[in-house]
Amino acid sequence: MSTLGNSMNIFWQESPIGKLERQKLLNQKGCVVWITGLSGSGKSTLACSLSRELYERGKLSYILDGDNLRHGLNKDLGFKAEDRTENIRRVGEVAKLFADAGLICIASLISPYRKDRDACRAMLPDSNFIEASLFLNERDPKGLYKLARAGKIKGFTGIDDPYDPPLNCEIEINQKDGVCPMPSAMAGEVVTYLEDKGYLQD
Amino acid sequence: MSTLGNSMNIFWQESPIGKLERQKLLNQKGCVVWITGLSGSGKSTLACSLSRELYERGKLSYILDGDNLRHGLNKDLGFKAEDRTENIRRVGEVAKLFADAGLICIASLISPYRKDRDACRAMLPDSNFIEASLFLNERDPKGLYKLARAGKIKGFTGIDDPYDPPLNCEIEINQKDGVCPMPSAMAGEVVTYLEDKGYLQD
Repeated sequence: MSTLGNSMNIFWQESPIGKLERQKLLNQKGCVVWITGLSGSGKSTLACSLSRELYERGKLSYILDGDNLRHGLNKDLGFKAEDRTENIRRVGEVAKLFADAGLICIASLISPYRKDRDACRAMLPDSNFIEASLFLNERDPKGLYKLARAGKIKGFTGIDDPYDPPLNCEIEINQKDGVCPMPSAMAGEVVTYLEDKGYLQD
Repeated sequence: MSTLGNSMNIFWQESPIGKLERQKLLNQKGCVVWITGLSGSGKSTLACSLSRELYERGKLSYILDGDNLRHGLNKDLGFKAEDRTENIRRVGEVAKLFADAGLICIASLISPYRKDRDACRAMLPDSNFIEASLFLNERDPKGLYKLARAGKIKGFTGIDDPYDPPLNCEIEINQKDGVCPMPSAMAGEVVTYLEDKGYLQD
């Protein structure tokens, strides 16, 4: 029984209700805001704050959190390079579905390798992949860097596993005068981008 | 580098905007309508018709089509029993995310094994997994049964691969007087169920 032999019975099904109709219902445009950054850089903080700011404007978003998905969809994956790649591929595929459903999908995961992020970008047509990069000084709210530096966590991104910073991301969030911006200010930068690009109307 | 050793840095992130807020925005309740049935039984026809009927009521649904997902999320999987199980597990996990996002998620896939469907049901709390089974006489719109019977497709569900019919599904769609119901009538049965159970309001 081969995959190839069966591939003849896998057809693409067109739905009569498409992305345009769903966007009209929601009065917004589906897209993916992909938040990348080191552990502790504030990805979840930004994701939650962005979700709230959008909700207050009546917009529907959904957060795909890399850590949460490892409890469900990606629970069969570990942290070897190929598992990290597969982890991100699956999140990219699911994010694409959410964008197609008309939602503003907020993907929040370290996604350390540029080639993996770029593969997700390539899945999304029409500039609907918006990479938001957090360049905030390393915080350590969970005490993980300390453990990693002591060798108690192996394969920790930024310590003994590489992180490729984005080269041309749509949104960069940096410290201002050595201070981390407030969550609502970080979210505001993304909302302004989405507004300017027309994502907050159909 | 072990998964176990790293699991200490995988935390669950709570979002301030939850399912209840999204349901309020959409004026509906998130759930999964899981359509199961043999190849050619009309799953996609029902899915598309249901999507249209819901749209006309201003409700947001999204179709997860088993065949379509094999071009994306599940493109690494074949048709061996364990691949079919993993295929359905992933669709179940994604359907759960869509329901959590507040959508009426319409999953349309053969899903031949009862244990796999029941595993998806177990993922969804509070009766939000609605199994709709198509018991329509075998149609062969794509000519696949003919090929399978001639041995030209191997591992074809219902011919040389088993199909476990549901035992206690929420919705059964049967022939009436030997005639297949119209797509809108099939969809109507599901819409009535959703209306009666309160899914079409928040």
